[in-house]
Amino acid sequence: MLEASELNFKDKMAENAKAKGSNIVLALDFPYEKPENRGILYRRAERVLEAVHPHVCAVKINHHLVLPLGIFPSVKNLVDLAHDRGLLAIMDCKVNDVGSTNQVIADYYFASGFDALIANPFVGWDEGLQPIFETARKLGRGVILLVYMSHKGAEEGYGQTVIDPEFGGQIPQYLLFARKALKWNADGVVVGATYPERIREVSNVLNGRVPIYSPGVGVQGGDIKSALESGATYLIVGRAITLSDNPAESAERIKRAVNAMVKL
Amino acid sequence: MLEASELNFKDKMAENAKAKGSNIVLALDFPYEKPENRGILYRRAERVLEAVHPHVCAVKINHHLVLPLGIFPSVKNLVDLAHDRGLLAIMDCKVNDVGSTNQVIADYYFASGFDALIANPFVGWDEGLQPIFETARKLGRGVILLVYMSHKGAEEGYGQTVIDPEFGGQIPQYLLFARKALKWNADGVVVGATYPERIREVSNVLNGRVPIYSPGVGVQGGDIKSALESGATYLIVGRAITLSDNPAESAERIKRAVNAMVKL
Repeated sequence: MLEASELNFKDKMAENAKAKGSNIVLALDFPYEKPENRGILYRRAERVLEAVHPHVCAVKINHHLVLPLGIFPSVKNLVDLAHDRGLLAIMDCKVNDVGSTNQVIADYYFASGFDALIANPFVGWDEGLQPIFETARKLGRGVILLVYMSHKGAEEGYGQTVIDPEFGGQIPQYLLFARKALKWNADGVVVGATYPERIREVSNVLNGRVPIYSPGVGVQGGDIKSALESGATYLIVGRAITLSDNPAESAERIKRAVNAMVKL
Repeated sequence: MLEASELNFKDKMAENAKAKGSNIVLALDFPYEKPENRGILYRRAERVLEAVHPHVCAVKINHHLVLPLGIFPSVKNLVDLAHDRGLLAIMDCKVNDVGSTNQVIADYYFASGFDALIANPFVGWDEGLQPIFETARKLGRGVILLVYMSHKGAEEGYGQTVIDPEFGGQIPQYLLFARKALKWNADGVVVGATYPERIREVSNVLNGRVPIYSPGVGVQGGDIKSALESGATYLIVGRAITLSDNPAESAERIKRAVNAMVKL
């Protein structure tokens, strides 16, 4: 399905989830390793990816791997491996810099093969996220926006009340971000599984037009059932798989649990 | 001055600026280079750092170098070089992830020798920035918070009006962030030189207790004089130096211009 380059990232994800029978995105995250152990870390990431790929539709990589391993060639090799195994690859860089820097960041990640980037809409459009969206469109890649994160402190920023710059009155920050996701034609939004009520509210705004990626299931305490019932499209699962004694078994168990609840 | 490990980052910066006779932070940023040219990029960064170090008090590194070069060993070598030349090193990662990930990010950057990290206060404290601040304190490193960025779209997020969660009523986002910088005892805040009026307002809140780092001078259009008069403590200068035909000469010229206006 990766050949279908006429598809945009959003459609590729939908097709891939259907083809693989899984809406799970593997967060390939590992604890800090001493720099001298980065060979061990690389092989561990490779091993988990090889074991788990039949049970997930995409892999999400974060700084847990990018910082110790570097992109070229190590993380790029993992992205290539993911593609070879039929997975899409998302870079969770939560990009939030000025436009010229965002452009450089996107250029490096897209050059290493990532199919989509995660960005923080707080940075705004003009000289902010615009260059990333434009580059992604040009290359057939995706941009996923943070709308409500999975941690406690998310309340402080994502959950704050702001003055609606368009219509006046008060509006929660996350609903303003959901509106931006529609306006900017984002390929997805992130809403933490730890906040099912927020998933529901965001889902009502997006109305099926932008899929919801939900992290925080498992170690962070999010519940699969409530996340799905509230409108999550994809579940992002990390440590419940990567730190398991048997990552493949854990991934398969979570996949079965999800598939018993959802029709892909 | 780098031996004085009993000093916190904020005090180290102040001492270093005085000792070097410069309040300029060099943003060691370069345009996108093809991955196969990363050797050239490394040598270019090294050359600019060697040429410019007499005229600046610190170097700020961003993803322009981290992504193509990797931290270990390349960026770490540049940090070592900066230290050898008497500069402090700031990583502009604009970290904005959940706490456990922020912790891993901070661990890798601090392991590579960076003296301070830049973080986005939007992520909040609980399970957000708390682990970074705690790790920084333990290691004698610093955390600098984004309060108002230098690009046009900064108005959208940093410039929005929010409901004050403590006292009620309306307050600009950036003043809420300035208040967090005081509450969390940040080692600095970033306010774009392109918005001198914002520098002044933030300076009034911080009242000299937290220094203001101001990027956006030069290529982005910020004016040195108005940034300094409005309360900027350090000027972050990147492309006006790194893309110059003669980086040392450009840095020296800017330093002289600054020093004619400010008493360090």
